[in-house]
Amino acid sequence: MMRASVLRNGRMIYRDDVPEPVPGQGQVLVEVTACGVCGGDLHFAAHGARMVELADQMTGAPSLTDGLDLGRDVFMGHEYAAEVIGAGPDTDAPAPGSAVTSVPALVTAQGIAPRLFSNTQPGGYAERMLLSADLLLPIPNGLDPRLAALAEPMAVGLHALNRSGIEAGTGAVVIGCGPAGLAAVAELHTRGIEPIVAADFSPARRELGRLMGAHEVVDPGVESVWDVWRRTGTGRGAPVVFEAVGVPGVLDAILRETPVATRIIVIGAAMEPDALTPYFGIAKEVEFRFVQAYTPAEFTETLCQIAEGELDVAPLITGEVGLADVGWAFDQLGDPEQHCKILVLPNG
Amino acid sequence: MMRASVLRNGRMIYRDDVPEPVPGQGQVLVEVTACGVCGGDLHFAAHGARMVELADQMTGAPSLTDGLDLGRDVFMGHEYAAEVIGAGPDTDAPAPGSAVTSVPALVTAQGIAPRLFSNTQPGGYAERMLLSADLLLPIPNGLDPRLAALAEPMAVGLHALNRSGIEAGTGAVVIGCGPAGLAAVAELHTRGIEPIVAADFSPARRELGRLMGAHEVVDPGVESVWDVWRRTGTGRGAPVVFEAVGVPGVLDAILRETPVATRIIVIGAAMEPDALTPYFGIAKEVEFRFVQAYTPAEFTETLCQIAEGELDVAPLITGEVGLADVGWAFDQLGDPEQHCKILVLPNG
Repeated sequence: MMRASVLRNGRMIYRDDVPEPVPGQGQVLVEVTACGVCGGDLHFAAHGARMVELADQMTGAPSLTDGLDLGRDVFMGHEYAAEVIGAGPDTDAPAPGSAVTSVPALVTAQGIAPRLFSNTQPGGYAERMLLSADLLLPIPNGLDPRLAALAEPMAVGLHALNRSGIEAGTGAVVIGCGPAGLAAVAELHTRGIEPIVAADFSPARRELGRLMGAHEVVDPGVESVWDVWRRTGTGRGAPVVFEAVGVPGVLDAILRETPVATRIIVIGAAMEPDALTPYFGIAKEVEFRFVQAYTPAEFTETLCQIAEGELDVAPLITGEVGLADVGWAFDQLGDPEQHCKILVLPNG
Repeated sequence: MMRASVLRNGRMIYRDDVPEPVPGQGQVLVEVTACGVCGGDLHFAAHGARMVELADQMTGAPSLTDGLDLGRDVFMGHEYAAEVIGAGPDTDAPAPGSAVTSVPALVTAQGIAPRLFSNTQPGGYAERMLLSADLLLPIPNGLDPRLAALAEPMAVGLHALNRSGIEAGTGAVVIGCGPAGLAAVAELHTRGIEPIVAADFSPARRELGRLMGAHEVVDPGVESVWDVWRRTGTGRGAPVVFEAVGVPGVLDAILRETPVATRIIVIGAAMEPDALTPYFGIAKEVEFRFVQAYTPAEFTETLCQIAEGELDVAPLITGEVGLADVGWAFDQLGDPEQHCKILVLPNG
């Protein structure tokens, strides 16, 4: 038996009676050293039933919740760093003690399947978990596993940047300085994009925006981000806008106020229907690109950026908890003034 | 005094007391030989107040209705072919009798200004109108002016095609076979895109879709366009989707059912808020490109395509009326079974 924190009826529950995972062929047993709490997990805890419903309505794309039973405990946690402690039969695995991480996926007979939510397989909010040997990445440079755990959320920013097609000479506006927005700011900064204008209602989040590389930070309650853009982005035409709020109404406000020919990268995953006014989009020939996650190559690149000191993610970590306090951490993350990224240290 | 049809209180009214336009410097006086009735004009007649309201809310883009007073008569008509009959002072103009057309814009001191709606300047629903000499295009090859008048709506299709970035080997799905959707079908066909799957509830419109070059036409009341796509588009990945309906609900239905990584070109200009589910867009990494109108170069290219017989637009013309019957034509166009493009022949 081992300890874990599981989602039960919308709350994170501490358990000390979770069966020990047993690696099969191609699988590696790891001890979780650190696992970040993702906003998507908070979202799923609050709106899991809605997400399953939407996934069931949707055709043409694989579902992240296929076969998931919300009436049973759900294992979550997908921003992890870990240490190898064993391997399944006939499995080529790094030596025990090796520091590793992995994209949150498992190799199955059907191919590589994302694993963010599971009734059966413990994730990063557990003492130990299984990873697929073929997907393991060594954590380089003796990097602190707490920083390595941030490769996953930061890769979301790199993917958004890559999908945006933003080029040198074009500026960026980032709406929302949660972890996804901050990842976008950090990657835009690393890419040399200038100016980066970042907006958030929270002073603490704006401060993190500045630390991650925003040239201007804006409190939308005080000043219009578009006024700041016009002031700082003069002569650079339309910005590429990164929407990282995911609350209904934000996209339409962007459409209404953004310059002509703006490209909007949508990272914020609103579950609820969001009313847009197509007329605004058409009158301005706006473009939306919805983005999700990252490629394995982007994940690896982000890990290297952190290990080589190109990305300083330490300021994003605002708290560390043990497995018994994951529920508390979920609650705390509702307040952007107090916390940004809380790490779970299952064996700390 | 001359004859014209004007928008008054949401209805097209015949007048025979409109002051004769007098060309200023740089302007040419023309006799309108044919002017197509545009769906946008119907839309404006029904929802003009809403459009002005939205344009007033919008910042960052020029308004098409700036300074327009809906309490006064509004001149419309922007799909025209014409014959030169005079010119303003010191104006270099084609010889009287020359067949010309023009993008619907006027050269002003502030630059080129689109002119679709005006309280003061008659448009194509009038005997005579003014055009800017610098924007005139000769109608080539002795082309029938009734066909030349279709350069404008067909250019919308060419622009959508160009903005879509569609490449050989990728197929297309066109939702809605009104004039804009049919223009997209025709231009996709001319570009050699295959397969083109076009959907419309109206049998007559589906027949036009086939005539314009659709390889498959679908009645969405009978079969899912996505089922047809999967059947005919096998092995070609996601289609590029052209949305040419402009009715709330269509975009979300596309998001819900389209394959992963679909690019959706939005031509249909819904005025009302439209509820989207961003979750679908994100789960599939969908892209939206809102498009409007065309560039002057695309307008010219379309006119040449028609003049050279590359685009056969004759089947789209389903009726011809005089100025006294423009109101009747607006009413008729509500029924897709009866009509597609009605031409006004002010001097016919």
